[in-house]
Amino acid sequence: MTFELTILGSSSAVPTSKRNLTAHVLNVHERFFLVDCGEGTQIQIRKNKIRFGKIDHIFISHLHGDHIFGLFGLISTFNLLNRDKDLHIYTHPELENILSRHLEYFERSISFKIIYHHLNPKLSELIFEDNKVKVETIPLKHRIPTCGFKFTEKPHLRNLRKNVVQDYKIPISKIQDIKEGGDFIINNGDVVLNDKLTLPPYKSRSYAYCTDTAYSEKIIPIIKNVDLLFHETTFAKNMKRQAKLTYHSTSEDAAKIAKKANVGKLIVGHFSARYKDVSQIISEARDLFPNTYSAEDGEKHIVELTR
Amino acid sequence: MTFELTILGSSSAVPTSKRNLTAHVLNVHERFFLVDCGEGTQIQIRKNKIRFGKIDHIFISHLHGDHIFGLFGLISTFNLLNRDKDLHIYTHPELENILSRHLEYFERSISFKIIYHHLNPKLSELIFEDNKVKVETIPLKHRIPTCGFKFTEKPHLRNLRKNVVQDYKIPISKIQDIKEGGDFIINNGDVVLNDKLTLPPYKSRSYAYCTDTAYSEKIIPIIKNVDLLFHETTFAKNMKRQAKLTYHSTSEDAAKIAKKANVGKLIVGHFSARYKDVSQIISEARDLFPNTYSAEDGEKHIVELTR
Repeated sequence: MTFELTILGSSSAVPTSKRNLTAHVLNVHERFFLVDCGEGTQIQIRKNKIRFGKIDHIFISHLHGDHIFGLFGLISTFNLLNRDKDLHIYTHPELENILSRHLEYFERSISFKIIYHHLNPKLSELIFEDNKVKVETIPLKHRIPTCGFKFTEKPHLRNLRKNVVQDYKIPISKIQDIKEGGDFIINNGDVVLNDKLTLPPYKSRSYAYCTDTAYSEKIIPIIKNVDLLFHETTFAKNMKRQAKLTYHSTSEDAAKIAKKANVGKLIVGHFSARYKDVSQIISEARDLFPNTYSAEDGEKHIVELTR
Repeated sequence: MTFELTILGSSSAVPTSKRNLTAHVLNVHERFFLVDCGEGTQIQIRKNKIRFGKIDHIFISHLHGDHIFGLFGLISTFNLLNRDKDLHIYTHPELENILSRHLEYFERSISFKIIYHHLNPKLSELIFEDNKVKVETIPLKHRIPTCGFKFTEKPHLRNLRKNVVQDYKIPISKIQDIKEGGDFIINNGDVVLNDKLTLPPYKSRSYAYCTDTAYSEKIIPIIKNVDLLFHETTFAKNMKRQAKLTYHSTSEDAAKIAKKANVGKLIVGHFSARYKDVSQIISEARDLFPNTYSAEDGEKHIVELTR
């Protein structure tokens, strides 16, 4: 039961020789969600050995080039590989026009259907849900309409204790009911309470993606207690003015949000290309929120199961 | 007096974990010419430590996505870096419409001028010339209008022999004349013949870029005797049928062209992503044309000065 984030790109605006443009892949129980798609994303997907066919949902935070210019090539590759499954893109509505015009010129025909889900960046809403995970938007504060995304695992069932199935001769037909909290009646009519049969369920794991954004306390109730928060840190704290001007965040901003939202772990990235070394940014963030890590291309962040 | 080709990408259609999409940079005396611009080109430019500011001319062979999807990000980066020099793009006319629409949406303003030079893919014509180099088109045979490009160094002047300036007390004002083949009259009226003063000039160096294309002998007179030929080899020779069908070339096709055109060195690339190992392709080409090398991302091919 995987819950694993792979960073594909961690640079802002322009790539560097070490950092590609923004894209993350979240693997929740072998469902792969692509979040943003900067230039080079398909190359990073290959390098990180993620199978193209596993990606059915792409979440686009906003329509700045450094978050979407990889879509053209990725869709072209899906087409060349004769993809036939639907592709869902969650995005500002304008992307539908841009991609449609683009595909009309560049692809003679397209082997799969693209289903666009238009986002409303003004409120937090549920935009995807299946039996394992749900995705909600996070309204962010940027120069253009921008959404973050929160991925939350659906509640786990209780776990059967060791050997109880044999010990009480529980038929398969009863197992789901017990995992959902039910007691079990044995042949002589005695009731075995659920507590004796099961352990508490694992906690639902969660990941929030917040970029691009200026410091905004409005997001705190939405991302409260997430296990993993990615918050952009385009600048170090001495560039507060520049951050404000461009609607980006500093190391301090990201760490303050992480602290106030009581998250488990903070990953910062979307670094300005001016930083060859981001250790200063990380250390500034850690001063306020010690469990901070820098986003590094190709690195994975796993959220383990806990009760 | 550099004449150096850098391969930025060598895969066709889709990138692999080791091969980026097509782009070459030719450095002729510190003028940097970019040829094609597949997705990820700006990242490869950075990795190969080529300065963005040195690139003033971009040559686009044809409007398939794997040759141009890097333009969006590259132009965006030029803009973010506040480029002010003109950028010249040599291309099929339709790219002007595509890029104009694109820039209108994605760039609020653009800090430099883009000058489009429309290509006629039906004939070979001179499309660029300065005091060091000229560029001519090569009509290729592909599914859509496609041009190759031949870069030729302008003729070198003769080289002064060692110590002649001191020995004959040649004034600076006479040097250009002597390098152009003139004799020198010394104070007593005696004539020193040019042969005594100079060595023959270095040969002009040349590079031809031919992709994407089916086998076409029509290009032979245009690329005759070039020092460096890049010819696509999307397929190994056992895929002749597939090559014909898609208007691409095999190892054998490329080598035959190189041989018939009597080129100095053949570089093959634009490999189908099906080939994890291209050694078979190289060995097939070498059977016909021994001086063949595979295009490898980040590798350089230098043409040395010879007389």
